[in-house]
Amino acid sequence: MANPSVSASPSSTPLLKDELDIVIPTIRNLDFLEMWRPFFQPYHLIIVQDGDPSKVIKVPEGFDYELYNRNDINKILGPKASCISFKDSACRCFGYMVSKKKYIYTIDDDCFVAKDPTGKEINALEQHITNLLCPSTPFFFNTLYDPYRDGADFVRGYPFSLREGVPTAVSHGLWLNIPDYDAPTQLVKPLERNTRYVDAVTTIPKGTLFPMCGMNLAFDRELIGPAMYFGLMGDGQPIGRYDDMWAGWCIKVICDHLGLGVKTGLPYIWHSKASNPFVNLKKEYKGIYWQEELIPFFQSVALPKECTSVQKCYLELSKQVKAKLGKVDDYFNKLADAMITWIEAWDELNP
Amino acid sequence: MANPSVSASPSSTPLLKDELDIVIPTIRNLDFLEMWRPFFQPYHLIIVQDGDPSKVIKVPEGFDYELYNRNDINKILGPKASCISFKDSACRCFGYMVSKKKYIYTIDDDCFVAKDPTGKEINALEQHITNLLCPSTPFFFNTLYDPYRDGADFVRGYPFSLREGVPTAVSHGLWLNIPDYDAPTQLVKPLERNTRYVDAVTTIPKGTLFPMCGMNLAFDRELIGPAMYFGLMGDGQPIGRYDDMWAGWCIKVICDHLGLGVKTGLPYIWHSKASNPFVNLKKEYKGIYWQEELIPFFQSVALPKECTSVQKCYLELSKQVKAKLGKVDDYFNKLADAMITWIEAWDELNP
Repeated sequence: MANPSVSASPSSTPLLKDELDIVIPTIRNLDFLEMWRPFFQPYHLIIVQDGDPSKVIKVPEGFDYELYNRNDINKILGPKASCISFKDSACRCFGYMVSKKKYIYTIDDDCFVAKDPTGKEINALEQHITNLLCPSTPFFFNTLYDPYRDGADFVRGYPFSLREGVPTAVSHGLWLNIPDYDAPTQLVKPLERNTRYVDAVTTIPKGTLFPMCGMNLAFDRELIGPAMYFGLMGDGQPIGRYDDMWAGWCIKVICDHLGLGVKTGLPYIWHSKASNPFVNLKKEYKGIYWQEELIPFFQSVALPKECTSVQKCYLELSKQVKAKLGKVDDYFNKLADAMITWIEAWDELNP
Repeated sequence: MANPSVSASPSSTPLLKDELDIVIPTIRNLDFLEMWRPFFQPYHLIIVQDGDPSKVIKVPEGFDYELYNRNDINKILGPKASCISFKDSACRCFGYMVSKKKYIYTIDDDCFVAKDPTGKEINALEQHITNLLCPSTPFFFNTLYDPYRDGADFVRGYPFSLREGVPTAVSHGLWLNIPDYDAPTQLVKPLERNTRYVDAVTTIPKGTLFPMCGMNLAFDRELIGPAMYFGLMGDGQPIGRYDDMWAGWCIKVICDHLGLGVKTGLPYIWHSKASNPFVNLKKEYKGIYWQEELIPFFQSVALPKECTSVQKCYLELSKQVKAKLGKVDDYFNKLADAMITWIEAWDELNP
C-alpha cells in the first residue's frame, strides 16, 4: 500500500527542509558532520553544548546552526533551567524545546553514515522522514512489517477498518557496529558488533513498551514534543543513561492513550565507539534495579479521558510518578517536579 | 545472548528428527516434495488428502509418511469427524490431532525452497526449530529483534527480570514471491511480489493479535496443540480462507493467558502461485466483514485464572464465542460447538 504523500527516492528539494531541525548534544568539535554533509547541510542544526560553556565548539563550514551552552540555557529558562540536565546527553531535550519546527531529528556525535547491504550510504534522515509521514499500525500486527512501504501491504486477515492507520509521532532508528547495550552486557560481550541489517520498519503495538534510544531518533514535535523530556540525569543526579529510556516509556504510554504511532527499525546509522562500560555501570546501576519497578508502573499507567493533549497527559503522568514511584526513591519526587517545570518551560517557549 | 541449546548450523543428525511431524494438506501429487528432499526426508510426513478420497495421491519415493483421506478421517473420528473441514485446507488440523510428536511443521504444497540474499537455499524447517527452541519475549519489545540470535542481545533498558523469556509455542514463517494477500488486495495489486528478505525474528507482544497464515507454520503440540483448530471452512460452510486466521486469534489469546510466546519472521518459503482472487473473494467476503467484529471480540477476551490448560482455555473460549459472536451469525454457534467437538476428539486421540 504505497503512500502517495511520501517518496523515498531522492528529490531535488530535501524533504521537509524548512520543517525539521536536527538536534545534536555535544562536548566536542563537530567533525562528524563532515560525513553527514550531503544529507544534513540543507537543514538547520540546533547544537546543545554540554559541559564547560567557555569551551568553543567548532562546527564545520557551511552548516546553518544555532548553539546553546549552559549559560544560554540558564539565561533563557531562568530558574526553570533546573529541569535541563547538565553533563549528560539528556541536555539535548533543551533543543527540542527551543526549536520552532514541526519535526526533530536527534543524533549523537559519534554516529556516522552507515551503508546498506548493497554498499550504498544510508540517508538516515530521509528514512526517518518517510517513517514519520507514513501512518503507523499499533492496533494489529502486520506480519510483512510496514504495510505502507513499496512492495508491501496489509496481509490477509488484517481488518480493513484499521488500514488507514494512525499518525506516526516517533521514528526510532537503529545502529550498526556498536549496539546500544547496557554496561553489564558491554562487559560480558566486549567484542559484539551488530552486523545484521534488518530491512524493516515496524510499528510497536499499542500497550507494548520498548527501550527508546536517543542516538538516532526523530519525532513530530507538534504531536508528541512536550512528552520528549529526557529527565534529570548526570550532574547532581543519582543516575545516568536512562534519559532516553525515561522519555521512551513516557511517550509510549501517551502515544497509546492519544492514538499515535511509534515506529522502529530503519534507518541504521554507524555507531563508531562503545562508551566505557565501567563508567556506564556507575551511571546505570540504580537504573538497572529501579527499572524493575518502573516497567510495571508504566505498563499499568492509565490516563483519564480528560487528558486530551500531550501536556495534560504529561502532567497527569508526573502526578502518578510522584504518587507511585516516590516511594521507590526520593529521586522520583524530584523528577516528577522537574516534569512539571519542563511543561511550564515548554509552554513558555511555545505559546 | 546465544542460546546454548540451539545451533543454527547444519549438524549430522537433523534437529528433532523423532520429535516432529510435517503436516501437508493436499489434493494433488506431492511433486513439490522433491525440492524439499534434502530438508524433509529425515522427518515423518502426515498427509491429509482433501477432496475425492478415491483419487490416488503420489508421494515421491523415499519419504516416510502416513496419509489420511476423508474416509479415514470419518472412520477414525466417527461422528466427531464433523469438526474437520472438507474441501478446504483447514482439514490439515486433523494431522495435528493424529500426530504423536511434540512438534508440528505444516506447509502448503505450492510452497518451494526460497533463497536468502546470498543465494543459499533456506532450510525453513531448521529455522522454525531454532525459533521454537529459543524463548520468546512477549512482555517488552527488543529493538534489535530476537535477543537470542547470534550477534544480538537485549538492548540497554531491557528489564533484566524479563531476559529469561518464556517458552515459544508458535513459529510463524513468511513468504517470498506471492504474498499472502486477501482477495481485494490481490485484485488491486495482481502483480505485487514480495522480494524483501527481512532478516529478523520477532516475538509478537502480549496483547497484540496478528494474522497467522498456515502456509509455513510450526508449533509445539504439547504447549498449544489443542488450540490449533482450523475451524469450519469450505464444504457446507459460509466461509473459507479464515481457517488459519481463526486459529491464530485463538492461539494468541491463549498463549497470552498461559505466558507462552509466538514468533514471526524467518524462515521464508517461496510461494509459487497466487490463488484465484475471484474464487477467494467468494470464500472470504463474509469473513471480511465478520472480522470487524471478531477482532474486537478477541482483543477483549479475558480467560479466568481457572483456565490452566490449553483445553480449559479453549473450552472457555468456545463458550464466549457462542455468547458473544452467536448474534453476529448463526455460523458462530456451529463453530463454537465444533470447537468443543474438536477438544473431545483431541482428548480421545491424545489420552
